[in-house]
Amino acid sequence: MSSPDPQSVKASATVFVIFGATGDLSRKKIFPSFFELFKTNLLPEKLKIIAAARSAYTSKQFAESLKENIKADDKNLWRKFSSLIEYIQCDVESGKNLSLLSQKLETVEKTNKVCTQRVLYMAVSPFIYQKAFENLGKYKFNLGCQKHGKLSRIVTEKPFGFDYQSAHNLNEILNKYFEESQIFRIDHFLGKETVQNIFAFRFGNEIFEPVWNRDFVDNVQITLAERIGIEKRGEFYDKMGALRDVVQNHLLQLLTIVTMNEPSTFSRDSIRRQKIEVLKAIRPFSKDDIIKNTIRGQYVGYSQEASVAKNSQTETFALVKFFIDNERWQEVPFYLKTGKKLTGAVTSIIFQFKEQGHELFKNFWQKPIPNHITLQIQPDEGIGISLVAKKPGLTTVLEPVDMEFCYKKSFDVPQPNAYERLLMDIIIGDQTLFLGRVGNSWKIIDPIEKMWQKGQPKLEIYKPGSWGPNSADKLIAADGRKWLAPILTICKI
Amino acid sequence: MSSPDPQSVKASATVFVIFGATGDLSRKKIFPSFFELFKTNLLPEKLKIIAAARSAYTSKQFAESLKENIKADDKNLWRKFSSLIEYIQCDVESGKNLSLLSQKLETVEKTNKVCTQRVLYMAVSPFIYQKAFENLGKYKFNLGCQKHGKLSRIVTEKPFGFDYQSAHNLNEILNKYFEESQIFRIDHFLGKETVQNIFAFRFGNEIFEPVWNRDFVDNVQITLAERIGIEKRGEFYDKMGALRDVVQNHLLQLLTIVTMNEPSTFSRDSIRRQKIEVLKAIRPFSKDDIIKNTIRGQYVGYSQEASVAKNSQTETFALVKFFIDNERWQEVPFYLKTGKKLTGAVTSIIFQFKEQGHELFKNFWQKPIPNHITLQIQPDEGIGISLVAKKPGLTTVLEPVDMEFCYKKSFDVPQPNAYERLLMDIIIGDQTLFLGRVGNSWKIIDPIEKMWQKGQPKLEIYKPGSWGPNSADKLIAADGRKWLAPILTICKI
Repeated sequence: MSSPDPQSVKASATVFVIFGATGDLSRKKIFPSFFELFKTNLLPEKLKIIAAARSAYTSKQFAESLKENIKADDKNLWRKFSSLIEYIQCDVESGKNLSLLSQKLETVEKTNKVCTQRVLYMAVSPFIYQKAFENLGKYKFNLGCQKHGKLSRIVTEKPFGFDYQSAHNLNEILNKYFEESQIFRIDHFLGKETVQNIFAFRFGNEIFEPVWNRDFVDNVQITLAERIGIEKRGEFYDKMGALRDVVQNHLLQLLTIVTMNEPSTFSRDSIRRQKIEVLKAIRPFSKDDIIKNTIRGQYVGYSQEASVAKNSQTETFALVKFFIDNERWQEVPFYLKTGKKLTGAVTSIIFQFKEQGHELFKNFWQKPIPNHITLQIQPDEGIGISLVAKKPGLTTVLEPVDMEFCYKKSFDVPQPNAYERLLMDIIIGDQTLFLGRVGNSWKIIDPIEKMWQKGQPKLEIYKPGSWGPNSADKLIAADGRKWLAPILTICKI
Repeated sequence: MSSPDPQSVKASATVFVIFGATGDLSRKKIFPSFFELFKTNLLPEKLKIIAAARSAYTSKQFAESLKENIKADDKNLWRKFSSLIEYIQCDVESGKNLSLLSQKLETVEKTNKVCTQRVLYMAVSPFIYQKAFENLGKYKFNLGCQKHGKLSRIVTEKPFGFDYQSAHNLNEILNKYFEESQIFRIDHFLGKETVQNIFAFRFGNEIFEPVWNRDFVDNVQITLAERIGIEKRGEFYDKMGALRDVVQNHLLQLLTIVTMNEPSTFSRDSIRRQKIEVLKAIRPFSKDDIIKNTIRGQYVGYSQEASVAKNSQTETFALVKFFIDNERWQEVPFYLKTGKKLTGAVTSIIFQFKEQGHELFKNFWQKPIPNHITLQIQPDEGIGISLVAKKPGLTTVLEPVDMEFCYKKSFDVPQPNAYERLLMDIIIGDQTLFLGRVGNSWKIIDPIEKMWQKGQPKLEIYKPGSWGPNSADKLIAADGRKWLAPILTICKI
């Protein structure tokens, strides 16, 4: 979480290669983010963006096609921006035309007349990562500029692998050609403002750290609930499922960030060390644990979605109860939950605190309502503290009240999207908000995934528009608790 | 902080005698509060209010004169309410006509045909308390109804005494005729909603108690700042001064409430015990302490106010730095400050927390801003937490943000004023929100008052509309701190 210095960004002569330039991620996220940065003059002065994909386009045609997702009212601005983009037809999986692309990169550098860093952005299907990485090595895309061979960077998207072994294999291939300092594994959640704000919340304030531990926290609920279904992602999704698509990356990342000890500095290494410390402390799952502490669900109608197997057993809802066996979190349950086609859309982390007796108030309420702190990421970013207060009036009645800090209300400045931040970090080479080798989270997920693929526990069907399988309520009720999210959301506008 | 049960109130046949019925307190607070309670049907079914004062009024004339301060649009309602009030001309200081009043009380009881409790409300000048109490005894007002001699209550206002000795003398006289359970010493601050809410805030929530101690709190600032001057109170005020008029009662009460340990129950005795524990732990002031840790000021123009001595040395501004020598608060300074004709009007208690290093952010802000929690009583009632958060954007900048809980915004119900609550408590006999014998707070204040009357430290003159004498800033700056209130106010509407 350093600050990308606009001057460093400007001075960094760069050529971006976007592999998979015609895909959804490129069109909806990467190119629009480039355009936003261009508008606000936050891109290198010497910049070329090479759009690489299998379809036939001229550069002009391709740029025109981007207009569907970019609001380019200012024609002059758009002309300048689109002139940065060059389309090259090639196939990183088969290697076809990669030598042409390679020559192009050399030409760019010659034109720039300065050492030009290469960024290879792998916005392609993760199923072809292995072959693609091999081809990048084979065609020496890793070499960077001639003066400084290490000045090339590779950017990967999620999922990075499908289990520990495949992630390990990908790392092995990558490491043949790239050092870790050149590899930028994206989990775009880490680029979001609120996730960064969790660091500020936790380590910039005085009053929360003393209660941020097992002595005071009763349980933690991390939720990523979506209202939408799998949309057009059937082919990809049916091979993945919610556990690997969301829990393994987004939710485990959130878990580490809200539970880690304070890193000594805001450096990549220090933060990664603290994350790994948490992941390594997560209690391993026995078979019994998996049957008892996980729930897999599938929404009614999922198997009729396009490109989904008719008898698919893939989960669209996943719930896992974790424990972190360290001094700080021993015996505090962490309920991680995600699902598609649920009643509401919310991403939040809720820390519920332990009841502290409150003998003083035993005559004034039916049941004490313990405080909870909500770190909400979507739909509206903010932090909420739920307290009790005396209801005004002549009688003593305590009622829950909320205090909120809402980004949009408190700061009258636009929030950059995650990709804008991440693109700038890639240009200046700051890896703080990127993933490490991803091995540890797969080690946690693999045993669960393995049991799930064997049909244990049973896949449960749930109605679209519900909060998921009934057993999710039963699981937490059996612990004497209840879900606080997504029923409670904060910062509604 | 029990709940006055409306049924108990209704069932309590009561006769109120308001001594000093023509004074400001009676007209502006007591009678309007009675009217509010009457409107909402929260008064005894058998009730008589006897207005007693020296001036000549018929009951009808007196009731008419109340309309200046009571909005009585509903004529029928007003007719019923005013029929409860009877005016009797008498003088509680000299004893004139008190036998007539005494006969009246007996008549009321006969008419009621049930044992009727007497409430003797001393809304007279505190300078005549001693004589008045003697007369009440002499004319046997303390005896209550015939069946139950203890069913009479006496209500006193602030100040209760002018120093330890005079308060002690008043207690001695009172105790000749009344038991402690019959004596209701008002500090109307204790009837305010927010003061009651401090109990709920502190002892109904989980997340604050762990940081509510010397390990985390850097300093506490208790402020009662007024924009107005002494208005028409010159004769009274010039004999009192800010230290005795505000610090001895309101501010020390607030201090005890925000620092006491949790009482075992919401009973009068348990809360009083905890308050006394705090007062007894306040570090005694040596002469040096008084010179170093107190400031007395007088606004320019005070000595020209009506009924004020031309060479008056009475303070209209008082600042005292206290320490509480117990395990919880050792070495945490409590700055208690009050003044008239200041820039703004605010009553608040601010807990500022200690800096906790924040090595992580040392490159991202010039100077850390430690969190503080504000319990604001006036002008708008609420609780604020000042945090830092990351300013949205591509750079990492931490900025202070506020979370607020505001009574008016959160609860859509009218707030009863302090006197409504206190009148109901008097009727049912609940002393939780009333003062004890007041001796301990005078013991703390007496040595300061004594030095001040000798002219030490020097009386400082300050400009109306300022924040008081410059030395107030110097005193806290010498501790490496600064005033947070009244500059920061919360819940602005």
